[in-house]
Amino acid sequence: MTKAGLMRVFAACGLALLSLASAASAQTDPLPSWNEGANKQAIIEFVTAVTTEGGPDYVAPGDRVATFDNDGTLWSEQPLYVQLVFALERVKAMAPDHPEWKDTEPFKSVLAGDMEGIVASGKKGLLEIVAATHAGMSTEEFAGIVSDWIKTARNPATDMLSIDMIYQPMLELIGYLQDTGFDVFIVSGGGIEFMRPWTEATYGIPKENVVGSSIKVEYKETDTGPVLMRLAEINFIDDGPEKPVGINSHIGKRPIAAFGNSDGDYQMLEWTTTGPGRRLGMIVHHDDAEREFAYDRDSHIGKLDRAMDDATKQGWHLISMKDDWKQVFPDP
Amino acid sequence: MTKAGLMRVFAACGLALLSLASAASAQTDPLPSWNEGANKQAIIEFVTAVTTEGGPDYVAPGDRVATFDNDGTLWSEQPLYVQLVFALERVKAMAPDHPEWKDTEPFKSVLAGDMEGIVASGKKGLLEIVAATHAGMSTEEFAGIVSDWIKTARNPATDMLSIDMIYQPMLELIGYLQDTGFDVFIVSGGGIEFMRPWTEATYGIPKENVVGSSIKVEYKETDTGPVLMRLAEINFIDDGPEKPVGINSHIGKRPIAAFGNSDGDYQMLEWTTTGPGRRLGMIVHHDDAEREFAYDRDSHIGKLDRAMDDATKQGWHLISMKDDWKQVFPDP
Repeated sequence: MTKAGLMRVFAACGLALLSLASAASAQTDPLPSWNEGANKQAIIEFVTAVTTEGGPDYVAPGDRVATFDNDGTLWSEQPLYVQLVFALERVKAMAPDHPEWKDTEPFKSVLAGDMEGIVASGKKGLLEIVAATHAGMSTEEFAGIVSDWIKTARNPATDMLSIDMIYQPMLELIGYLQDTGFDVFIVSGGGIEFMRPWTEATYGIPKENVVGSSIKVEYKETDTGPVLMRLAEINFIDDGPEKPVGINSHIGKRPIAAFGNSDGDYQMLEWTTTGPGRRLGMIVHHDDAEREFAYDRDSHIGKLDRAMDDATKQGWHLISMKDDWKQVFPDP
Repeated sequence: MTKAGLMRVFAACGLALLSLASAASAQTDPLPSWNEGANKQAIIEFVTAVTTEGGPDYVAPGDRVATFDNDGTLWSEQPLYVQLVFALERVKAMAPDHPEWKDTEPFKSVLAGDMEGIVASGKKGLLEIVAATHAGMSTEEFAGIVSDWIKTARNPATDMLSIDMIYQPMLELIGYLQDTGFDVFIVSGGGIEFMRPWTEATYGIPKENVVGSSIKVEYKETDTGPVLMRLAEINFIDDGPEKPVGINSHIGKRPIAAFGNSDGDYQMLEWTTTGPGRRLGMIVHHDDAEREFAYDRDSHIGKLDRAMDDATKQGWHLISMKDDWKQVFPDP
């Protein structure tokens, strides 16, 4: 056979392989942990619409951007944000080197486990806790501390590993979007450098696709080479109306799908779904006290009020954890 | 044939196709516009080393991050940064709506083409020009203005289209790195939103892989939907020691290869090449007055002084445009 003839055979084989693979994947349910219903259907119809070449809603792969909030959307945020648990536990771990903390707020309250005292210390107190636990070290040191901590971090209410309290249906949704040519980002009020050490292993979302809050960082020469030092100064709070700002800065594209769970995601959802063409906005509603937690309008953490009121008007889908999800957490 | 048998045939065909494709690509010179020599060899050896599975220098694809400065590294920056030409031309285009500019600095000098007058207006003057030409509009409006402008923008010295004064050898280098599993980013002192409208078409680098300087942006509801308004306030200057800061913020990974041309790239090169494992740092040296421009230590734009002094000590390769590049600009 000539080389050209060989190439043609190979090419034909390749095409047959491709169509076989695509037929196989069409038969597999991409969202097995989702109950059949309007929400699952809305996801699949949306993905089908924007990925159907020649269709009226087709979107080129480079513009298939989806953004996910993290706390309460991809993993549990009750009874306390995981990053807050981290900060409080770090204060306790560091206390032996800081004898003065026994008599200084907000550390005194943290060490006494006095949540009311911490809350009473206000924003100033919270920033002091952040400064003590998140700054004054290099980015590499901080990443190492977070990586070690997250391995054994447990939810104060369930005693489960925090990393095991991620939502299986959302994992499937991320995978489904990635498999259909979406570029998937986390856009969270949480610390960007608190998330990056574990998002790839946990969600399959690489570091460069994580957008979050940050403190300032400074390039510094040291005897052992340059480092990026973390400073006790807020740089960016990626919440509410700042989420579209963070999206613009990091991605430079307007998402066509966004997923959140609280009023802090309102503007991200709005920015996403008011763009031209077909869009998808969804809100995880925590209504499953039995398998996770039930909270919305009156919660201090993950308050969902205005976004729930406006969901119908805005065309956002409310995901009921209780009704839409067969399974909440991954199998052990 | 059974389905399993069919699958085996297809799989064998697929593997054969893959090895044929890989053999074909090994025979093609990935850098045809580079003269044979130490620099071309250094690039190819580096890429081979970090992509050879099982080798001592192997780096997993997700960690193959390469960063490129833009002005003077990917396209010409003389006699004026393209973005500065944009700002000055915008002042002229907007002048009919601003009769007061005829008598107000720095606009008076801009309209008179008086570069010394502009320089004399200092940082304050420059910020006023930026505010007038880059702010007070939505991100979408600005992107539209830049997209239209860049199509016909010409270099004041050569009268060539600015977009035609990109470096063919660097285009090949970007493509070579992308083809070998690198994630390639621009990390420039230029405006992030000035670059994003054209980097994908020009360099094959998508918007989310562009890091640059920025002004503040604000999410705003309007009668026709939300917009991101550009404010007359500097947010981040992505130059010198801030380049590693921008890299950390946007990418969250330390590059293993970096390419620059001026002292403004010093810390990016240092941050890249002082990391563990095999690294590559290269500096484009503008020594080709005949085909482009010749400048280094005494230039106001793209000053290359300290980085040239330290290149040997730091292990950075100096690329000679004159000697290393067969061709500077792409074929018309």
